[in-house]
Amino acid sequence: MSTLRFALFGAGRIGTLHAANLAIGRGTALACVHDPDASRAAALAATHGARVAGSVEDALDACDAVLVASSTDTHVALVEAAARAGKPVLCEKPIDLDIARVEACRAVLDAHPVPVQIGFNRRYDPDHGALRTAVAAGEIGRLEMLLITSRDPAPPPPEYVRVSGGLFRDMAIHDLDMARFVLGEEPVSVYAAASNLVDPAIGAAGDVDTAMVVLRTASGALCHIDNSRRAVYGYDQRIEAFGATGMLRSENHAGGTVSRFDAARTASRPPLPRFFLERYRESYRLELEDFVAALRDGRPPAVGFDDGYRALLLARAAERSSAEGRAVAPW
Amino acid sequence: MSTLRFALFGAGRIGTLHAANLAIGRGTALACVHDPDASRAAALAATHGARVAGSVEDALDACDAVLVASSTDTHVALVEAAARAGKPVLCEKPIDLDIARVEACRAVLDAHPVPVQIGFNRRYDPDHGALRTAVAAGEIGRLEMLLITSRDPAPPPPEYVRVSGGLFRDMAIHDLDMARFVLGEEPVSVYAAASNLVDPAIGAAGDVDTAMVVLRTASGALCHIDNSRRAVYGYDQRIEAFGATGMLRSENHAGGTVSRFDAARTASRPPLPRFFLERYRESYRLELEDFVAALRDGRPPAVGFDDGYRALLLARAAERSSAEGRAVAPW
Amino acid sequence: MSTLRFALFGAGRIGTLHAANLAIGRGTALACVHDPDASRAAALAATHGARVAGSVEDALDACDAVLVASSTDTHVALVEAAARAGKPVLCEKPIDLDIARVEACRAVLDAHPVPVQIGFNRRYDPDHGALRTAVAAGEIGRLEMLLITSRDPAPPPPEYVRVSGGLFRDMAIHDLDMARFVLGEEPVSVYAAASNLVDPAIGAAGDVDTAMVVLRTASGALCHIDNSRRAVYGYDQRIEAFGATGMLRSENHAGGTVSRFDAARTASRPPLPRFFLERYRESYRLELEDFVAALRDGRPPAVGFDDGYRALLLARAAERSSAEGRAVAPW
Amino acid sequence: MSTLRFALFGAGRIGTLHAANLAIGRGTALACVHDPDASRAAALAATHGARVAGSVEDALDACDAVLVASSTDTHVALVEAAARAGKPVLCEKPIDLDIARVEACRAVLDAHPVPVQIGFNRRYDPDHGALRTAVAAGEIGRLEMLLITSRDPAPPPPEYVRVSGGLFRDMAIHDLDMARFVLGEEPVSVYAAASNLVDPAIGAAGDVDTAMVVLRTASGALCHIDNSRRAVYGYDQRIEAFGATGMLRSENHAGGTVSRFDAARTASRPPLPRFFLERYRESYRLELEDFVAALRDGRPPAVGFDDGYRALLLARAAERSSAEGRAVAPW
Repeated sequence: MSTLRFALFGAGRIGTLHAANLAIGRGTALACVHDPDASRAAALAATHGARVAGSVEDALDACDAVLVASSTDTHVALVEAAARAGKPVLCEKPIDLDIARVEACRAVLDAHPVPVQIGFNRRYDPDHGALRTAVAAGEIGRLEMLLITSRDPAPPPPEYVRVSGGLFRDMAIHDLDMARFVLGEEPVSVYAAASNLVDPAIGAAGDVDTAMVVLRTASGALCHIDNSRRAVYGYDQRIEAFGATGMLRSENHAGGTVSRFDAARTASRPPLPRFFLERYRESYRLELEDFVAALRDGRPPAVGFDDGYRALLLARAAERSSAEGRAVAPW
Repeated sequence: MSTLRFALFGAGRIGTLHAANLAIGRGTALACVHDPDASRAAALAATHGARVAGSVEDALDACDAVLVASSTDTHVALVEAAARAGKPVLCEKPIDLDIARVEACRAVLDAHPVPVQIGFNRRYDPDHGALRTAVAAGEIGRLEMLLITSRDPAPPPPEYVRVSGGLFRDMAIHDLDMARFVLGEEPVSVYAAASNLVDPAIGAAGDVDTAMVVLRTASGALCHIDNSRRAVYGYDQRIEAFGATGMLRSENHAGGTVSRFDAARTASRPPLPRFFLERYRESYRLELEDFVAALRDGRPPAVGFDDGYRALLLARAAERSSAEGRAVAPW
Repeated sequence: MSTLRFALFGAGRIGTLHAANLAIGRGTALACVHDPDASRAAALAATHGARVAGSVEDALDACDAVLVASSTDTHVALVEAAARAGKPVLCEKPIDLDIARVEACRAVLDAHPVPVQIGFNRRYDPDHGALRTAVAAGEIGRLEMLLITSRDPAPPPPEYVRVSGGLFRDMAIHDLDMARFVLGEEPVSVYAAASNLVDPAIGAAGDVDTAMVVLRTASGALCHIDNSRRAVYGYDQRIEAFGATGMLRSENHAGGTVSRFDAARTASRPPLPRFFLERYRESYRLELEDFVAALRDGRPPAVGFDDGYRALLLARAAERSSAEGRAVAPW
Repeated sequence: MSTLRFALFGAGRIGTLHAANLAIGRGTALACVHDPDASRAAALAATHGARVAGSVEDALDACDAVLVASSTDTHVALVEAAARAGKPVLCEKPIDLDIARVEACRAVLDAHPVPVQIGFNRRYDPDHGALRTAVAAGEIGRLEMLLITSRDPAPPPPEYVRVSGGLFRDMAIHDLDMARFVLGEEPVSVYAAASNLVDPAIGAAGDVDTAMVVLRTASGALCHIDNSRRAVYGYDQRIEAFGATGMLRSENHAGGTVSRFDAARTASRPPLPRFFLERYRESYRLELEDFVAALRDGRPPAVGFDDGYRALLLARAAERSSAEGRAVAPW
């Protein structure tokens, strides 16, 4: 089978990771890189023997598929351009921070249908994925409660916070998508409580850094999400699924397996991995692999545009709930 | 120092446990037992060489202190009688299911002040207690999030559910008290979502069996509680305290330390203890010890009448929130 | 059924524990206490409403069964006296440090047969026992390797070391018995290597404090034992059984369930329990219960005189092996 | 700095892994591949854009350094050829199964000194390495006992067993090297006991499959190694270092982080990784990286020829001990 040549938009941190995955992946090649920062694009392209695309059009001409890893505010325009050019797209989350723009983008996709996958890479984490598969297979009977703990090791800089769209659209959105993924049914009610406890600069930027969310589905299943922008012991990523016949927990990845015992404490382990690219490295690789497999097999991508849209609606509902002190309907 | 002679009201499951603790405790003695079921009272009294009290007055006459472990609807009358007789009381939770009756009882206690301790025994669990002590000592810096998981192994019979006061006043009340204990400040907002998922008979009895609660304090700390009436793997009792400089977790007690490894799974452990009297045996003993110490030292009991009252107000707020779909103020 | 009245010899640390178990046990009573230190005997007897026996004969007259918890050098004479008086005996380990005396005692027991149980209480530890039961039930297929880790929290005082019989007869003997118990067949070869690393005073007393033993059975199963007189993190008691279809591990008992996470370390637990009477409290209780049940049912005690004898022969073999640098046959 | 071009001898399982590491490593390139099976060499060379070397001389001409991953019986000749050609060598373990040949090889190296590293890759495992670093830094005080558990998931085919050199030279040799690495001093006595329990075919091939080793150093430190050719729950690789002020354990790598709880068992995890190339993938990469760094820095490789020689002498001593039933001196 022929190799799928990708145009990569964005040569930053996540673009660099995707570039490496494209370069070593089976059946994928990095054809060209586009980035507003031309030298950054050139450096990344050179590493993998790809070329720099001088324009979006140039990039789209030279590829079979598109990977959008540029800044969030450029996502919609690139997805639309790819759709018009008839090229399948793997687009990093979120589609956009603005729901109206996302809806407009959807209209473009309706007119120019191409396969689109949204980069909720955590669905591809082997452990989270194994938990979801077991839940879906009925291993714990009916799912009654889901608990998602998701805490970053350290807060982002205030300048990022200001353009991030806020904790719910920037950070919790991953967990809201994970909730939909594992619950297997849509939430019908969203409650959120949030505070600015970690860093006053985040509050000054109009955002929160600590939050709890409760989702409720039509069948009555309950889901808890908690977020913090700072966990000193590392990147804390856990899921607990509680059902009628058992419980499943996707525990943290270890930061090393050496345990220490002394007169003061026993069984202590090193801190958790601190960096999301390290913690979720495998999930980025598998996400790309599945996108390519979907294109090959002619099936829709497993994480579609609508998943990106719905996660955003849940994030918006959480914002409203937090402001109004009541549960709100997300749709 | 002289021995403190107790009158025990209630010869059921919890009364039996308290009787044994009174019998073997330092500085305590079981003087007499009173129970509407005279043969039950007689059997328990005989076990410990105590006598049966023919009436409440008889019991109060024969004792230095009172332990109320009778059915909930008798608590207030017994506390009031003890107060009028000038006898200190250790009263099982809840004081009553009806807030007006609790307030009336408080008025009686104001007029006839005696030391009263409410039986929130879990505060005396050595592990939960160590967590709270560490939080209070600042070991994890400012407390930002608290997560309390509290799941019973199996649902109570429907006839109990009907008189229990409902999940929030009967079961969550322990966790609401624990939240106050660990948070170190009062919740100002309560949100709850609840479902009937475990047993339709519970729903038919007008109650829920699965719930999540979110508390928020004035300083912005957030607290999650989740409850289920049925956890097939045993009695699940965990607390996680997340703070600015660390995290503390009071993990489940083991149901045994043998782990199993085979071709299908590794490190598997036996189910958790299934019975609350087994899981919290030590806490009942320590609760009594501390009550006696408080009387001896002339200090107020560590868990006072007001703690019982406030936990009940929080439970009521959770009920309202669950019904109205919004966060409510508890006080 | 009538209560079994015990005469207790020895009012020291272990005697005190046994006295409490006799006092609270079903179907047992502490009739009298005998100890060379009369005031110690009186104090213990008073605690439990028992009387002090003025002599061995007096004690034997007043009882249905005997519990020997006196100093090791008195065990044989007391077992023999009990046998001659026709009273069943539960005797603390070791029977004696001297094999010739043990053999002479056996001759007396052959002439005056009474039920005798040797106090290898660890066989009654619920976790070690569950491991052994699972091995015997074939849960891990054929047992191929057994690993026993047994480390004391702190070394005994040199004066004790001097009369202890040495690490192998005093400490490893428990593990050698455990090995026989779990292996289910007799070792045919014993190798030991030992060092004086913990405390020079132990070496000066002619003993070692650190040892490894390898046992081999006729079928080829291998068993490792390691001992240290000092583990700063607490009393370390683990067993690992490795078989054709799986592995079982009896892990340490926790010194508390609170785990701590901070910037330097995660999941750290408190030190292990430090005191053997605390770690094995339940096993002492169950050992007594089983002894009484054996008497009631007319079956031989589960841990007989021969078990005490064989453990001693294994300890002697380990000593020889350590001295000679070669594996030796124990029988 | 210029890239180091490697000639790779051996295109089998381990050669393939090394080829990939050479291809993606910083500062390394795979120049050519040599293998008696020309098509296997061609396939591997093609994957990485390298060429096939028609002869050993051809390969040595075309490279800056040599990686020997061919069958054991060819190691010595290739190391000698590389030395004569003045090329540094990273040679897989063991150097040879025959000690006389190893000594002859050493003589050649004395005459033609080049940097030689032996592939005891486990020293580079980040967790084992962290344990050793902590021991060397005195984190647990004086090291008193070391326990190494090393069990393969499944036995090799009998045809491999026949040419493997036996369990001690083929499998335990890794653990004997690890013992030297962590102990920080040489063993002076070796005891081994071994059995054929796993597979009669292994016994028929003249080998054992289950073994325990005890090492003793001059200072009195003790070391236990246990080996099995079959652990149904996966590849079991653990190290425990016990010292005067603490204990360190390098625990198994997880086969996944999802734990399961149901009515029969709690906290069960997936089986361990089953394949050594998966378990030690990182160590192979770091081993190569360190070899290259040593060449660059002009320092001797961290794991030298003498380490390979000494591990072999320890394996031979274990064989002798197992045959003779006594501890033997290894040197």
